[in-house]
Amino acid sequence: MKLYGEDNPAPNPRRVRIFLAEKGLTLDHERVPLRERAHKATAFLDKNSLGQVPVLELDDGSFLSESVSICRYLEGLHPQPPLFGTSPKEQATIDMWIRRIELQLMMPIAHIWRHTHPLTAGLLTQFTDFGESNRAHADRVYHWLDQELAKTSFIAGEAYTMADIIALTTIDFGRFIGVPIPDDCAHVTAWLARVGQRPSATA
Amino acid sequence: MKLYGEDNPAPNPRRVRIFLAEKGLTLDHERVPLRERAHKATAFLDKNSLGQVPVLELDDGSFLSESVSICRYLEGLHPQPPLFGTSPKEQATIDMWIRRIELQLMMPIAHIWRHTHPLTAGLLTQFTDFGESNRAHADRVYHWLDQELAKTSFIAGEAYTMADIIALTTIDFGRFIGVPIPDDCAHVTAWLARVGQRPSATA
Repeated sequence: MKLYGEDNPAPNPRRVRIFLAEKGLTLDHERVPLRERAHKATAFLDKNSLGQVPVLELDDGSFLSESVSICRYLEGLHPQPPLFGTSPKEQATIDMWIRRIELQLMMPIAHIWRHTHPLTAGLLTQFTDFGESNRAHADRVYHWLDQELAKTSFIAGEAYTMADIIALTTIDFGRFIGVPIPDDCAHVTAWLARVGQRPSATA
Repeated sequence: MKLYGEDNPAPNPRRVRIFLAEKGLTLDHERVPLRERAHKATAFLDKNSLGQVPVLELDDGSFLSESVSICRYLEGLHPQPPLFGTSPKEQATIDMWIRRIELQLMMPIAHIWRHTHPLTAGLLTQFTDFGESNRAHADRVYHWLDQELAKTSFIAGEAYTMADIIALTTIDFGRFIGVPIPDDCAHVTAWLARVGQRPSATA
């Protein structure tokens, strides 16, 4: 197997690296330089027609994309320690939280990135009013998440899971582009300290 | 167990109904009238703090939200026929396609709905230029999907899976709000005829 990815701050390849670190796995790795638009080159589109990283090349020569799906595949091959849960209820709860973090928190941060940031200005038509409106949206979501994290130690309950990996990479990318955790979200800040001190967080 | 949902054209509750029909399962059902904002009432927020349907009430009194996560839970209890795959590679491939349909196709359709449609005008600040720009985005994604469906009978390969349920409900909702399948996307149209003739499609 071989992993195609990119260095930080690209958040999606980092998800897979943290997952591998938590599992104690290593993979052959090839960098796809995003600033050189290598992910949109024909040779890479043969690996993922959407032109996105990460991509996993399987031993049978086929390719798998989408960071969460790559991690699900690796979990199937290496179930311990479980990061997607074991019982149907655990698995569904972790899946729910992955979706909540992506659909609620990652989306406004992605819109701020695409529609307001100088680094993306040449790549698409920016609708800056729309992009800026997502700062208030992200703020609301952070306060909702803060109330949820008042009840549990980790995103999906009392165990560290894939949902924490999604949240960490999303929140760190938000901080990189100027969307900090609101000062009064003490539970999110405490959670970040908790997951940020794990060795995998440096991946 | 009890399912909280809403009638068509709400696309997310329909995902669970189609899944149940494919599995041959029935569940107690309670309608949550979205136009009356029942999903934002305090009593419902106790079931899902995000105020969204569908929600599944489990036999232990806990609640699970997110349509895909609810279906994953039901698949764990009722594995046959498999709609999320069985081997790690099948499971990861179906997961990849669920994500692709949601992140690539559902997103522009959702933006058109939220930012241009009269029915949502009173619910949020609409950025209509941004919303309208998503029509070209959806068109590009439809043409990408058409090329992908030239290779396979169903979204994730040669078997009907959860990815087809996500695509069907997304595309039907798009058609409802005025985002039709482009005329020259013959493979998508043929796929829609294929999945649309299944008994589950009327759910």
